[in-house]
Amino acid sequence: METLADALARTRAQIEDGLRARLAPAAAPTPFDQALAHAVMGGGKRVRPSLTLLCAEACGGEAGPGSDAHRAALAVELLHCYTLVHDDLPAMDDDAERRGQPSVWAKFGEDTAILAGDRLQAMAFAGLAECRRAAALIGPFAHAACAVVDGQVADLDTAKRPPETWDKAALYGIYDLKTAALIRLACRLGAIAADAPEPTQTALAAYGRELGLAFQLVDDLLDAGQADAGEGLNAIRILGADEVRRLAGRHTQAALEALGALPGGAPTLRAFAQSLLTRLV
Amino acid sequence: METLADALARTRAQIEDGLRARLAPAAAPTPFDQALAHAVMGGGKRVRPSLTLLCAEACGGEAGPGSDAHRAALAVELLHCYTLVHDDLPAMDDDAERRGQPSVWAKFGEDTAILAGDRLQAMAFAGLAECRRAAALIGPFAHAACAVVDGQVADLDTAKRPPETWDKAALYGIYDLKTAALIRLACRLGAIAADAPEPTQTALAAYGRELGLAFQLVDDLLDAGQADAGEGLNAIRILGADEVRRLAGRHTQAALEALGALPGGAPTLRAFAQSLLTRLV
Repeated sequence: METLADALARTRAQIEDGLRARLAPAAAPTPFDQALAHAVMGGGKRVRPSLTLLCAEACGGEAGPGSDAHRAALAVELLHCYTLVHDDLPAMDDDAERRGQPSVWAKFGEDTAILAGDRLQAMAFAGLAECRRAAALIGPFAHAACAVVDGQVADLDTAKRPPETWDKAALYGIYDLKTAALIRLACRLGAIAADAPEPTQTALAAYGRELGLAFQLVDDLLDAGQADAGEGLNAIRILGADEVRRLAGRHTQAALEALGALPGGAPTLRAFAQSLLTRLV
Repeated sequence: METLADALARTRAQIEDGLRARLAPAAAPTPFDQALAHAVMGGGKRVRPSLTLLCAEACGGEAGPGSDAHRAALAVELLHCYTLVHDDLPAMDDDAERRGQPSVWAKFGEDTAILAGDRLQAMAFAGLAECRRAAALIGPFAHAACAVVDGQVADLDTAKRPPETWDKAALYGIYDLKTAALIRLACRLGAIAADAPEPTQTALAAYGRELGLAFQLVDDLLDAGQADAGEGLNAIRILGADEVRRLAGRHTQAALEALGALPGGAPTLRAFAQSLLTRLV
């Protein structure tokens, strides 16, 4: 039985290979090619697309190169990368760094960063269009792509309102759209790509949503130790660390329960959810 | 026999109705809803989506509300609107006005404009995903969405190089991607939505490309009378007005020839191409 760490190393390598192939320029790379590569190959953990592959496998589906699950996973990561490139822009979060490197706009200019994000979103859909089950995959993907934007809008709107108006409902509204929608999508696409029956698709979508919420809350807990902790909207500030810890546990539990319907119990997905709380991934 | 003007008034109204329905918010409109409406309902001529409807009709297909052609036409217009919103941004063309109104960033802020463009692109794909022929429509759409970005990149790159290096090849490279790719797509999607045979799809794609090039060249000729004419990259500056007029005529002729293969001769599409030169549309 493959350990969680081995499964994640394997799926991450599959994603890296796929992204590299997808981004390989036909000729000598232009500065724009370099900007796209900088945006995508900057060393993320590839959690979302790995979940697409692992969910497809949990449904007994193919997840190797050329499979619908693999193409869908790459599309999920390209979508995620585009949102990071645009989020970092001066007019948005104004982050000149990401993962210890200059962000795309800081290195290549704002105009290039805007266009690189736009193109990554288009490329995500182009890859999905090549899937055998394109018709079934694209609807959920496009709706999640809308949701992610709505989450960013809600985040910026809430941040402009006085902190005393921030509450749990506003927080969950943002986290559901900004973080959970994409992780839910990643899991759901794996099930669709594997041609899983409708109840399994629903179960894995629920798993992804709960996982996404737990993921974001754990992130806030870990950030609480950072220098700029407490600035801006975050769960700790609104709910306190104890309540956030309790909620992260509750969402992880709900994610595990959603797996109950799966044949074989999906041990890797189970281990993934459990590892969140101890942040082994 | 419906005149060209009547056909365009009819298709334009169909597009306006469809866009209004697509953008109608579920509740009281938020500022972001208003920004989306401002981006889309700002009074364009709807040339591109009208071509999708007219091409579907020329192939004997349905183009009314709920048809694949109508959904594809709306997607084409949403894609076009997103590119305008991002093109106007301060880091890009820095246009504070569009069609006599403040541009989206000037009215709603840069962050909202970036996110509005992002969401319009996602909405374009979401609408396409609802088509019966989604699988056939999405590939060409996604590739054109990439091409349009590449055209903008080529435009910005060329503009940064010394004007004495600008030549016909660079100009056509940009016009093909930036303008012709989307008009080509609009026509091709009409044919695909109407389930036209492959040779007809190819013929209408060729019609759209030639039309797109003629359209852009005529645009440059008309702009030559404006106050800021001659600034930046344009066909007149590189080729001279006489040559641009000759090329616009040649591309219009090529567009008309592409229609030769169509049953019935597609009189409305023929009239559309002819009207370009006299700019009746």
